[in-house]
Amino acid sequence: MAGAIRFLFDYVSPYAYLASTQVRALAVRHGRDVEAVPVLFAAMLDASGARGPAEIPAKREYMFRDVERLARMLGVAVEPPATHPFNPLTALRVTGCAPPGLRWRLVEALFAAAWARGLRVDQADVVARIASEVGADGPALLEEAASPESKDRLRTATEEAITAGAFGVPTLLVDGELFWGVDSLPLLERFLGGDRALDPGRIERWRRVPASAVRRSAT
Amino acid sequence: MAGAIRFLFDYVSPYAYLASTQVRALAVRHGRDVEAVPVLFAAMLDASGARGPAEIPAKREYMFRDVERLARMLGVAVEPPATHPFNPLTALRVTGCAPPGLRWRLVEALFAAAWARGLRVDQADVVARIASEVGADGPALLEEAASPESKDRLRTATEEAITAGAFGVPTLLVDGELFWGVDSLPLLERFLGGDRALDPGRIERWRRVPASAVRRSAT
Repeated sequence: MAGAIRFLFDYVSPYAYLASTQVRALAVRHGRDVEAVPVLFAAMLDASGARGPAEIPAKREYMFRDVERLARMLGVAVEPPATHPFNPLTALRVTGCAPPGLRWRLVEALFAAAWARGLRVDQADVVARIASEVGADGPALLEEAASPESKDRLRTATEEAITAGAFGVPTLLVDGELFWGVDSLPLLERFLGGDRALDPGRIERWRRVPASAVRRSAT
Repeated sequence: MAGAIRFLFDYVSPYAYLASTQVRALAVRHGRDVEAVPVLFAAMLDASGARGPAEIPAKREYMFRDVERLARMLGVAVEPPATHPFNPLTALRVTGCAPPGLRWRLVEALFAAAWARGLRVDQADVVARIASEVGADGPALLEEAASPESKDRLRTATEEAITAGAFGVPTLLVDGELFWGVDSLPLLERFLGGDRALDPGRIERWRRVPASAVRRSAT
């Protein structure tokens, strides 16, 4: 089997939720595995200097509508969350501690809890209960998630994602290529289907394009 | 015929270029006209406090690759531009002064000049030559574009776009709904095809979702 797709996600993103409902079927169509990699979106924003869609009022309003429309197009359930933004740290760390055989079930259950069931996945007891529901030992995972090793794991995964060029979630990494956003899934599908790597010479020409104007407030 | 689609664009955006190659055929499929509305993307960024993709290094690198892939998927020619970002003011104002019957031909010619022919559309003589190539009086348009009325027209169109909720380009406005980005064209197509307006009650529920965490550097 060719290399796995790395699915980088944070529960705080409704777009990551939508992508999580699609990516495994997409991977199966092309004989790939998908590895679920929790990362902290807020740290990506800190690193890039960008703002998240929930942090810009016009984008936040658009996000509601966009997510409703995308969910309808994809045939996926979505409901307004209990709170947003919320702190995803415990949910992300617990996911990183889950046994590999239960990992994806937990990812799906936590995403559904946040984005289809209106549950407070920023609360430790809710996360533990959901972990138990999918067959893990919720209280034990919660304890493990508070360990320095667990915190390091999330921090390292986020740093590696940023080093790989990621700036948001969901990000999909496969064969050295990066795809960002649920909107990029058709491009990922084409890539896996044989529309292969970009021409490095052309990409280098793009990189060398000089600016001839700079927005004043961007400097 | 039902109401026209307003296509809000700025030549500086390769995504607006890609959308410009698709939107008229999409509109024809649903019996709609498309009105080309030049707006200044930089002013939208100033208003929202967001940064453009070219202003964040990781996003700029991703943009090259994304645009190459999208262009290949859509069957559209694209080449690295002569410079980027560039100042689009003259090109946008000249477009706003073009006679309605020539407007779309000029939009297509200026987008192609910037994004497929590597021409400096930030330079007045280039813009005038392209306007003449599509059958307009290039030098006369250039003169008219420098008038206070022309400058007001672009400023007003941009302010109206921001008031309507736009924060980037391309933005498509139709029947009171807003679609952002070339990625939103499938959603626009579904909307025109009968997947109609969102449930106002649900949207109001989304709006009332409270934050339970705020990123420190976002405040």
